Amino acid sequence: MNRRSLIDLNADLGEGFGIWTLTDDTALLSIVSTANVACGFHAGDAPTMRHVCRAAALLGVRVGAHVAYRDLAGFGRYSLAIDPSMIYDEVLYQIGALAAFTHAAGSRIRHVKPHGALYHDAARDEAIARAVVAATHDYDGGLAVMGLPGSGLQRAAVERGITFVAEGFADRAYNSDGSLVPRSARGVHEDSEVIIEQALALATGTAFRSVQGDELRLDVDSICVHGDTPGAVHHARALREALGRRGFTITSDLS
Amino acid sequence: MNRRSLIDLNADLGEGFGIWTLTDDTALLSIVSTANVACGFHAGDAPTMRHVCRAAALLGVRVGAHVAYRDLAGFGRYSLAIDPSMIYDEVLYQIGALAAFTHAAGSRIRHVKPHGALYHDAARDEAIARAVVAATHDYDGGLAVMGLPGSGLQRAAVERGITFVAEGFADRAYNSDGSLVPRSARGVHEDSEVIIEQALALATGTAFRSVQGDELRLDVDSICVHGDTPGAVHHARALREALGRRGFTITSDLS
Amino acid sequence: MNRRSLIDLNADLGEGFGIWTLTDDTALLSIVSTANVACGFHAGDAPTMRHVCRAAALLGVRVGAHVAYRDLAGFGRYSLAIDPSMIYDEVLYQIGALAAFTHAAGSRIRHVKPHGALYHDAARDEAIARAVVAATHDYDGGLAVMGLPGSGLQRAAVERGITFVAEGFADRAYNSDGSLVPRSARGVHEDSEVIIEQALALATGTAFRSVQGDELRLDVDSICVHGDTPGAVHHARALREALGRRGFTITSDLS
Amino acid sequence: MNRRSLIDLNADLGEGFGIWTLTDDTALLSIVSTANVACGFHAGDAPTMRHVCRAAALLGVRVGAHVAYRDLAGFGRYSLAIDPSMIYDEVLYQIGALAAFTHAAGSRIRHVKPHGALYHDAARDEAIARAVVAATHDYDGGLAVMGLPGSGLQRAAVERGITFVAEGFADRAYNSDGSLVPRSARGVHEDSEVIIEQALALATGTAFRSVQGDELRLDVDSICVHGDTPGAVHHARALREALGRRGFTITSDLS
Repeated sequence: MNRRSLIDLNADLGEGFGIWTLTDDTALLSIVSTANVACGFHAGDAPTMRHVCRAAALLGVRVGAHVAYRDLAGFGRYSLAIDPSMIYDEVLYQIGALAAFTHAAGSRIRHVKPHGALYHDAARDEAIARAVVAATHDYDGGLAVMGLPGSGLQRAAVERGITFVAEGFADRAYNSDGSLVPRSARGVHEDSEVIIEQALALATGTAFRSVQGDELRLDVDSICVHGDTPGAVHHARALREALGRRGFTITSDLS
Repeated sequence: MNRRSLIDLNADLGEGFGIWTLTDDTALLSIVSTANVACGFHAGDAPTMRHVCRAAALLGVRVGAHVAYRDLAGFGRYSLAIDPSMIYDEVLYQIGALAAFTHAAGSRIRHVKPHGALYHDAARDEAIARAVVAATHDYDGGLAVMGLPGSGLQRAAVERGITFVAEGFADRAYNSDGSLVPRSARGVHEDSEVIIEQALALATGTAFRSVQGDELRLDVDSICVHGDTPGAVHHARALREALGRRGFTITSDLS
Repeated sequence: MNRRSLIDLNADLGEGFGIWTLTDDTALLSIVSTANVACGFHAGDAPTMRHVCRAAALLGVRVGAHVAYRDLAGFGRYSLAIDPSMIYDEVLYQIGALAAFTHAAGSRIRHVKPHGALYHDAARDEAIARAVVAATHDYDGGLAVMGLPGSGLQRAAVERGITFVAEGFADRAYNSDGSLVPRSARGVHEDSEVIIEQALALATGTAFRSVQGDELRLDVDSICVHGDTPGAVHHARALREALGRRGFTITSDLS
Repeated sequence: MNRRSLIDLNADLGEGFGIWTLTDDTALLSIVSTANVACGFHAGDAPTMRHVCRAAALLGVRVGAHVAYRDLAGFGRYSLAIDPSMIYDEVLYQIGALAAFTHAAGSRIRHVKPHGALYHDAARDEAIARAVVAATHDYDGGLAVMGLPGSGLQRAAVERGITFVAEGFADRAYNSDGSLVPRSARGVHEDSEVIIEQALALATGTAFRSVQGDELRLDVDSICVHGDTPGAVHHARALREALGRRGFTITSDLS
């Protein structure tokens, strides 16, 4: 089977806390092949973590720990200038907490993905990237790390012998260097044709346009579907169907 | 070897948070054979959890998750009337979080002990006891649960086929029914002779006096040494030496 | 003007936290005359508190502190068995925090209303009621306390010389003793005719039926409109209009 | 009376949380003339805030809000890259929360001092300095702001017409530009003669040596006494006595 006819779809799930919900976890779990689950630091109370892990186990969706800075009020969107050693400790804490729920569900976690500010900090700061990778490795050397292709996080994972899952964003604008255009700078695509076009380019490894107008080609293993916007479920389903029509099988098992 | 010549000494450790410390973890780890480690809900930030788990692994001290209600401001000392299902979820979360640190230290957790108000609630409320036991069991059926002998927690553990580690308190006064006299009602012994006397009675399974003046005989596997008082280390060391002089070996391996 | 032709409508607002929202604060502020604003313990991050207090000041809506047990994960819905002295301290903290935002908005807080489990605990436990009232009084003896008519909170307020604002619920079923039927026991009316009927009975001080079938007559100063349900805004607006058609003026100024 | 024969001594107090204590608040309140009280974000639970504010009111010690980033686990020592508008909101929240306790104690807050990372960020980042000053001003234009002489915070305060209380550190080494040498870079004096010498230089406005060996002259209104180190009380008392012997009156009333 052609490697390129398989693609993983991932979503950030369990992003509620207590009475509050953000993501439609049940609906998205029926669409994606991989769920990155909040672990209580930026979102994710324990009942939500249990619910998502159980449902994912039933549906065969791959689960990873979506680890973040400890900041509920800021949803993990702001950098916290803690030492890499504290990042290591807090990432390890979150991995373990989530793993308890996959474990109780008869499943296991398979990867770690940093969230929000930690995602960006781990992409560009080597010490932070290494802290995230080390925590992942020390928990279980068989876990993968998910992040931006070409990022510092990828280099740190490779250096440590950890599998890296490169993800692309169908609905986010890119700079020519492969970094994401900030949301606040019109970095989010809203036209569904543009989104599907970009998803197909990412899935097939063909070129698409950066905001600077250059051709950009990214080698990704997974496409991230956003779950925290109105219409998220609708967009995700449309994307899945478009990929299906183009001959792709949605699966987290890319090996 | 006579079963009664072995006794476990346990202490509640890692009870700091961030800049704050309460227990002298390093000193106590050189005295006890079992450490119940705070998991972030009543105390226990991630760096402290890592430190205690690493040191315990080096010293061969058995580690358990000291699980609590989510209440840093109250140190887990106040009952929170959440549903048993939420207790299940939050206990599971804490077990997993701690297990990440034992795991990274090349070790593993071996038991779960409720802390503070959850300790007392699990002793007298069946639904709460079952929630704690179920979370322990669903994480790993090989884990033990530690608590008061004769408590509801013991019954729930037995019912579920989980090993129960009965603990006694050398420095706490008991009622004739085996329950603890509250700290606020002169429930804490301060005379070190009384403490050592009671420890020996607990270790040998012989009788000692309840506050009502009755003879009380408790069958315990472990004696809890308090770590959160001034002089805690001194008392713990004295107790260990007294037990040693009476022929006891301090060990968590009672099988 | 007839006292009974004036009625206050109140809603619990600001019940989001960080990225999460629950109540449509802007819409409800255009409907009600009184806003009870979450203070960070069960909900209510600082930006939300600022926003609600500013909008309320512009619209002339009375603002009160909606004080709760410290429990974001449980939305303040679970009793926490802390001492009355700690309740006093934590209520005082919340009143002050909210008052900073009314103050910065050129306005001031006018009352205190307990939320969730604290609402129910203060209604039936004298020591808790007195703690809430004392904190209110010690902050400003001119503040009112809002709660259930006939409750322990009302008695404690009267005892202390604090104004009590009795509130009724148009959409909640009552027991014959004036207590609320729990939500989980079919305690919420959904038929809008029933809701409006009950609101009019409350506003006019005439009788309506308890779930036991008895006639119940409650003397209330304010009717609470729920903001945390789908359709909340629609129901609140319909209620306001129905009261208007029956000759009522919606105002927090009942003196 | 000569302006220079008056000097304020300030300490950061109430830096415990729940069961944990850090500062010996009672002892230090008998030594200093100004207390900067933690407001719950980096430390400071409500009972501690009440205790410190009551004791300060009895002793006539000036109270200010020691405001911080929301980070108990990191004690406010790490920068959090939130927007200035969120800093404004969270500072306002903390001012109000503390003011409730001074108010209930029959006293009032008199100033605001940023803590930890916020102290340093407000010294060098104009937007952050302005956010802190604006929150202070919007709470009460009569409040002062305390910080490093010559800092961005001072400029922002002056710009807004807010009184600035310049503080110096007797036990911290300075760079020639007036900034503090980090603690981690041998920035803390331990020799009590050096400490007293530097305090006298600060109190009299005479020169002392920076770590680079230059003469440094700082115009300060207050000298900060650290309360979070072993021996803090002893050092503070010695400093107070040395200033007394040199003819200084310790007072927060410098006008």
